[in-house]
Amino acid sequence: MNDPLPSWNDGAAKAAILDFVAGVTAEGGQGYVAPTERIAAFDNDGTLWCEKPLYVQADFIFRKWTAMVAADPSLASEQPYKAVVERDGAWLAAMLDHVPELLKGLGTAFGGLTTDAFEDQVRAFFADARHPTLGVPYAKVGYVPMVELLAYLDANGFKVFICTGGGRDFVRVVGEEMYGIPRERVIGSGPTLEYRDGALYRLTGVEQPIDDGAGKPVHIWTRTGRTPLLAGGNSDGDLAMLETARFALLVHHDDAEREFAYDTGSERALAEAAACGWTVVSMKDDFSTVFEVAPTGAVVAGTPG
Amino acid sequence: MNDPLPSWNDGAAKAAILDFVAGVTAEGGQGYVAPTERIAAFDNDGTLWCEKPLYVQADFIFRKWTAMVAADPSLASEQPYKAVVERDGAWLAAMLDHVPELLKGLGTAFGGLTTDAFEDQVRAFFADARHPTLGVPYAKVGYVPMVELLAYLDANGFKVFICTGGGRDFVRVVGEEMYGIPRERVIGSGPTLEYRDGALYRLTGVEQPIDDGAGKPVHIWTRTGRTPLLAGGNSDGDLAMLETARFALLVHHDDAEREFAYDTGSERALAEAAACGWTVVSMKDDFSTVFEVAPTGAVVAGTPG
Repeated sequence: MNDPLPSWNDGAAKAAILDFVAGVTAEGGQGYVAPTERIAAFDNDGTLWCEKPLYVQADFIFRKWTAMVAADPSLASEQPYKAVVERDGAWLAAMLDHVPELLKGLGTAFGGLTTDAFEDQVRAFFADARHPTLGVPYAKVGYVPMVELLAYLDANGFKVFICTGGGRDFVRVVGEEMYGIPRERVIGSGPTLEYRDGALYRLTGVEQPIDDGAGKPVHIWTRTGRTPLLAGGNSDGDLAMLETARFALLVHHDDAEREFAYDTGSERALAEAAACGWTVVSMKDDFSTVFEVAPTGAVVAGTPG
Repeated sequence: MNDPLPSWNDGAAKAAILDFVAGVTAEGGQGYVAPTERIAAFDNDGTLWCEKPLYVQADFIFRKWTAMVAADPSLASEQPYKAVVERDGAWLAAMLDHVPELLKGLGTAFGGLTTDAFEDQVRAFFADARHPTLGVPYAKVGYVPMVELLAYLDANGFKVFICTGGGRDFVRVVGEEMYGIPRERVIGSGPTLEYRDGALYRLTGVEQPIDDGAGKPVHIWTRTGRTPLLAGGNSDGDLAMLETARFALLVHHDDAEREFAYDTGSERALAEAAACGWTVVSMKDDFSTVFEVAPTGAVVAGTPG
């Protein structure tokens, strides 16, 4: 049989995945699970695509704010625009201290747009922008072994959902091309919406709860009516989702050479993974390939990451 | 070729459906639509199952309130319990005048339950309750021709969603058995939810917007990322959803003998259907069969419909 996960090195993580899938799909076996119940849910940022040095969507938003300041220089003295034009990474990194300003900036940038108009802006971003340190187009920052895993699960009767803490309507634009995941299988955070005069408009509010932390199991339930049979994440924001899954997989960013090495924001998840025997995926040891195209190195200026 | 809609009489409605589906599935044809974009959305109450003399879920709720009064007779003097024990159909029918009392009653009945515990109660209801005038179990009040239509669309590459103004977690319990629609394809109104200690709890709030009226296109977008290629409804609450669809189908309740005849609550939808050339389905003329089992007539006392 062909190896269904050729970009994974042989090791405990790959063996555990193959073993689990073999068990739940073996008809007549003790661990058999009917296809209707085979729900898989994956976080996106840091689990399916690279989230460093800044979230892909943050780059999209920062570029938009930069363009807004170019069109109206008076904004440059006002947050959050000020932090972007001054490349004030510390201000931007302290997101939780600046929620009102950030929400106001998001509302001003995208509130009132139709969902179609927003999608056009996302498409333009992906057509043009490159990752600030890898140098490749953002549509190429997905992890090849994880894309293989999604396809392998799909081929084994799983219904695979992306469950992103970031913007659902942002990820949907590239989900099919990058991951083979159709739009209706992308769950995530989103704005409040209004239907009027035949179109859907983004309002300035944010649908609650957002799809992170304890909000992830809520989103998965409302969208699927189930808890996941298998879930994959990489950070503390994925902990609640991973807790609800029969098989939990945690991507560990330990590959400074090919990607990034960091545990910040994943400390609790790593501890619980060790305590509960979850499958920890070492990007360094378990991935034979990380990206589809070789990084070219930093080529892009102008992003404040 | 076998007739894919054997419970539909030949006529304009059936011809329009077959024609539309043939057009969007003809590869190379001008009207071809890729399978990824073939989203179909159907209202449930009055579109897929009988909603008279009272909503199925209303009967479920009223029985629960009746049981609560039996356990605590002091509730009998308080609304909404009073209306149920006194069979005050007028009070219950004027729902919009009694929203605070009704929400309080719903919150008291189901708030704080886990999603699993709620599902157990729904299962018990369907195992036991019968339709008050048809006399058949509620799982048999689906319209056979509409179930055929869902299967026909599915066989033609459509992704079929139920988009109910009623409770998503109520319909999901029987959606697969009654309609062949898996849980993740049931969109609908729901309570606010909280994840804690490994379980999902129903809170006393209601997720906004509810999945009715202008809320339907919002729900369909958030769950699918698309507007429907085909949509089916029966009332003014479905108008916004039908407006967004390429092919709109309106079930007209004009069969007093086999089901019910009523236009109340559908006046605007019927007018727009006529104005826009939507496909109006006459239950009397277009359905050769309505229900899977013959109604036995009223057998159940105790419901206040």
